[in-house]
Amino acid sequence: MNSKGSNSTHHTLPSEWYFDPAHFQRELKSIWWDEWLCVARAGELGEPGQFKVIRVGSQQVIITRNPKGKLQAFHNTCRHRGSLLCESDSGSFHSGRIVCPYHAWVYSLDGELQNTPRLNESDDFNRKDYSLYQVAVDSWAGFIFINLAGIPASELKTRIAEEANPLSNWPMQELLIAHRQVHHVDCNWKVFWENFLECYHCPNIHRELCALVPLYGQGVTSPEDLPEDHPLLAASAQTLLKPGAVTWSGDGFTTLPWFDGLSREEQTIGMTFFNLWPSVFIVAHVDYVRSVQVMPDGPEKTRLTVDWLVSPETMDREALDIPGLVAFGQQVVLEDARVCELNQKGLHSQRHRSGVLTEKERDVLAFDQWVMARLGD
Amino acid sequence: MNSKGSNSTHHTLPSEWYFDPAHFQRELKSIWWDEWLCVARAGELGEPGQFKVIRVGSQQVIITRNPKGKLQAFHNTCRHRGSLLCESDSGSFHSGRIVCPYHAWVYSLDGELQNTPRLNESDDFNRKDYSLYQVAVDSWAGFIFINLAGIPASELKTRIAEEANPLSNWPMQELLIAHRQVHHVDCNWKVFWENFLECYHCPNIHRELCALVPLYGQGVTSPEDLPEDHPLLAASAQTLLKPGAVTWSGDGFTTLPWFDGLSREEQTIGMTFFNLWPSVFIVAHVDYVRSVQVMPDGPEKTRLTVDWLVSPETMDREALDIPGLVAFGQQVVLEDARVCELNQKGLHSQRHRSGVLTEKERDVLAFDQWVMARLGD
Amino acid sequence: MNSKGSNSTHHTLPSEWYFDPAHFQRELKSIWWDEWLCVARAGELGEPGQFKVIRVGSQQVIITRNPKGKLQAFHNTCRHRGSLLCESDSGSFHSGRIVCPYHAWVYSLDGELQNTPRLNESDDFNRKDYSLYQVAVDSWAGFIFINLAGIPASELKTRIAEEANPLSNWPMQELLIAHRQVHHVDCNWKVFWENFLECYHCPNIHRELCALVPLYGQGVTSPEDLPEDHPLLAASAQTLLKPGAVTWSGDGFTTLPWFDGLSREEQTIGMTFFNLWPSVFIVAHVDYVRSVQVMPDGPEKTRLTVDWLVSPETMDREALDIPGLVAFGQQVVLEDARVCELNQKGLHSQRHRSGVLTEKERDVLAFDQWVMARLGD
Repeated sequence: MNSKGSNSTHHTLPSEWYFDPAHFQRELKSIWWDEWLCVARAGELGEPGQFKVIRVGSQQVIITRNPKGKLQAFHNTCRHRGSLLCESDSGSFHSGRIVCPYHAWVYSLDGELQNTPRLNESDDFNRKDYSLYQVAVDSWAGFIFINLAGIPASELKTRIAEEANPLSNWPMQELLIAHRQVHHVDCNWKVFWENFLECYHCPNIHRELCALVPLYGQGVTSPEDLPEDHPLLAASAQTLLKPGAVTWSGDGFTTLPWFDGLSREEQTIGMTFFNLWPSVFIVAHVDYVRSVQVMPDGPEKTRLTVDWLVSPETMDREALDIPGLVAFGQQVVLEDARVCELNQKGLHSQRHRSGVLTEKERDVLAFDQWVMARLGD
Repeated sequence: MNSKGSNSTHHTLPSEWYFDPAHFQRELKSIWWDEWLCVARAGELGEPGQFKVIRVGSQQVIITRNPKGKLQAFHNTCRHRGSLLCESDSGSFHSGRIVCPYHAWVYSLDGELQNTPRLNESDDFNRKDYSLYQVAVDSWAGFIFINLAGIPASELKTRIAEEANPLSNWPMQELLIAHRQVHHVDCNWKVFWENFLECYHCPNIHRELCALVPLYGQGVTSPEDLPEDHPLLAASAQTLLKPGAVTWSGDGFTTLPWFDGLSREEQTIGMTFFNLWPSVFIVAHVDYVRSVQVMPDGPEKTRLTVDWLVSPETMDREALDIPGLVAFGQQVVLEDARVCELNQKGLHSQRHRSGVLTEKERDVLAFDQWVMARLGD
Repeated sequence: MNSKGSNSTHHTLPSEWYFDPAHFQRELKSIWWDEWLCVARAGELGEPGQFKVIRVGSQQVIITRNPKGKLQAFHNTCRHRGSLLCESDSGSFHSGRIVCPYHAWVYSLDGELQNTPRLNESDDFNRKDYSLYQVAVDSWAGFIFINLAGIPASELKTRIAEEANPLSNWPMQELLIAHRQVHHVDCNWKVFWENFLECYHCPNIHRELCALVPLYGQGVTSPEDLPEDHPLLAASAQTLLKPGAVTWSGDGFTTLPWFDGLSREEQTIGMTFFNLWPSVFIVAHVDYVRSVQVMPDGPEKTRLTVDWLVSPETMDREALDIPGLVAFGQQVVLEDARVCELNQKGLHSQRHRSGVLTEKERDVLAFDQWVMARLGD
């Protein structure tokens, strides 16, 4: 915003973009069915044949592993008459084949039509024409991503490389899910991101979080946003946490082992963020990592899948205190969900064409501009 | 109708106007968001800072009183990023300020932006540009009215003056709510009004009401609609009620004190009506007044708020018999609600392009013509 | 398909035709409100004045009998202001008249306006102009059919004659309803028919049915679809049932009397089908008949009314074993309902433009072509 000078006022997106069903379809097509989306942990598909069904708007995608362990993804639709292939949300193709429950057409775990029982295939019936509808799939940092575009505009690694990945010292690949929560929030997915991308609301909404992260208590997300003479900028302050705290927990302390390989700065600062619009953000601490997957279930419905990720050694500890690990982050999610729902409701005023963005909402502006660019506006 | 001669048949509005969602939006814009609407009793906002949230279709409006006691109304939307300001349907701004629950922007009870905590407002940020979205508000006869038009076409008093107000002898300002009921009726708001505006259905639907009001038992709303030689037109009949009755109650009698200041005719006739389309009708008796506020919650959903209003002295009576006061009017409302819902359902026949209006439905015709005029048809 | 040679691949209808609300309206207009629809058994309206209300999409139709016993059908809508006439789904016009519950307009059971109580009808009010909206109604084989077209394109008997009626030896007229079930299936009505019209799914879905009907165990509906040398085509095999079986029941046997008048072939073959698109199919056995009426309640909602029909003598048997009669057919319906719902869900994939039809789905192709023809495509 500063770059545009003091005379430029920035606005949020048009209000109706946050609730109009026709615009929601437009965003599904231009963003959600065109971007790499984080949809699972690789560990959820530990063995060949394990599968999971992902929902993105009206679309259902099966992700699985072929016998060689390679990830594969397909529309959850048979090529014959369009039946759903998987009825349950997760499970295993025990036979190493995908069998349609309707007429028993058989596909390999690579999506090739292998058999059409009892059918005299006519001369012009070429099985190669009836492979499952393939969906691009790849993994990064132990997360599985899919891309519903026929041909993705770029590879996942290219997309990741666009961002400055700050998590390279964390053993992301090997982390396991210690706990998962799914939250359904009555807001547009963009309202969720806009909330996440600023801390101007923090002093008002997140009391415990602001006690732990004094910077947030000032309503900013970066020390650069503080005045030059602010006490929090004292030379001794290398952490974003309150004195003595090391991680995001109720008291700032941890009973978990620390990750090996983190730099001194990464250990000290207390929290490291990585966002990949539109589908995930990750917060890494010295002892655990939290990820939040975002999915649009409707113009005013967003589904959050929150994972608390720990190292295998931590997972094996006899007395891993799951509730203690989870409570702090859960409270922040619930506090944000409440104000997201308030924001969503207020947007329906016919007089409110768009909101105004302040200096503290620089990242919201960047997000809104990214959305506009994706929509070709 | 008579004026148009015997060859003119009058019809109701096109059937789809009573259920088509797109037409409903058209009526919200042309009527509900453009007319003065009765939404509360002034006594509901007794003190400065007391507030109430009003819903008109998708719009939410806060009504409150400023420190001087002046009524104010605003969209329930913050000017910053559009959050809802009030989460509950009623309450009090105890601090004398409206504070957004999201980022704590502070507005005066006149809607002026007073403070943006923790924000370094840029040079081009002018608080005057971010006053709450004002809604016109005024009161009459102790009722609060709002008007969602940017600039109302006329003042409330001008709108009231268009009608011949028959309630000037009632102490309307000071009446208190002895009882309130909210009814949700599965019909279009126009179906409700059309039902209210004719008594052709009364003999069939309202047995007790017709016993109390013999005129209604003839299916008419005015003595002028009776044949010249009808017994009800006897010179002795100055009342519309059955012999001996004085008010609308189960037996026609009352244990409440009578209002002072009514004319002999007003005392005798037993009931006096005042309608203000589209949002309210009022029935005044010698001892109490009943008002019915109408709100459109959807193409086929109408909300009725029924108030039984009495004088402060009556309200103070130790043994005010609320159930006795309420029962008669409630029964009439429920009887009407049932036939409104039947009418609504039957309108969906594709063969039924519109209904036919009889001599007994003169006021329905006037209402339908008013609707058409408001829509510019 | 054979006629088109080996190079022609046939497809199902476009996927969106199975769920798009706008297309559903198109099919209501072009098919459901334009075709003869089977909606009841004649015995449900045993006496003059008995009535039943039928729902076809958004339309409600009253079927009744006039004093002479003649069937009549009308939109369930009063000609005055459009009120519903019948509030309950079935009953009897005890007075021999249809009286609107709103203003008590009175119609004869032939739909003529007979009386408008308390109304001074104006000179230009001609009762003949306000007869109920008539719906064509007729009966065949003891079933009542309606046609919502203003003027049906053809008479019911002409429509029936288009098909080769194979049920003429069954005493269809006199059969009584021994049991009725209503099933609500979350699929488009065409998905239901496509499922019904092929047995390619049978080996996979209907275990008991395939045990009873060995042909179905081969995934075909007609012996002609078997290879020439197939054992099921042995000269001795005159039945479609397993050896010893005579009807569709758990064990293939029956304790019910057989219908008189069936030919040797009809007795032996074990099952005889008759379909009348879009609203009914009938399966006739030696001892009972089952009919399934189909109704579209929404783009993805279909209502099935399944009747088990027996002769009056069977009905009078002291120990008629209803559960035994019903269990077998009910299981088949439930098995089909499950895969219909799977098929419906899978059709939403944006990649699935249409399905492919195999040699075993000849009748599905014929049905899809019939739908296209009805839509004028």
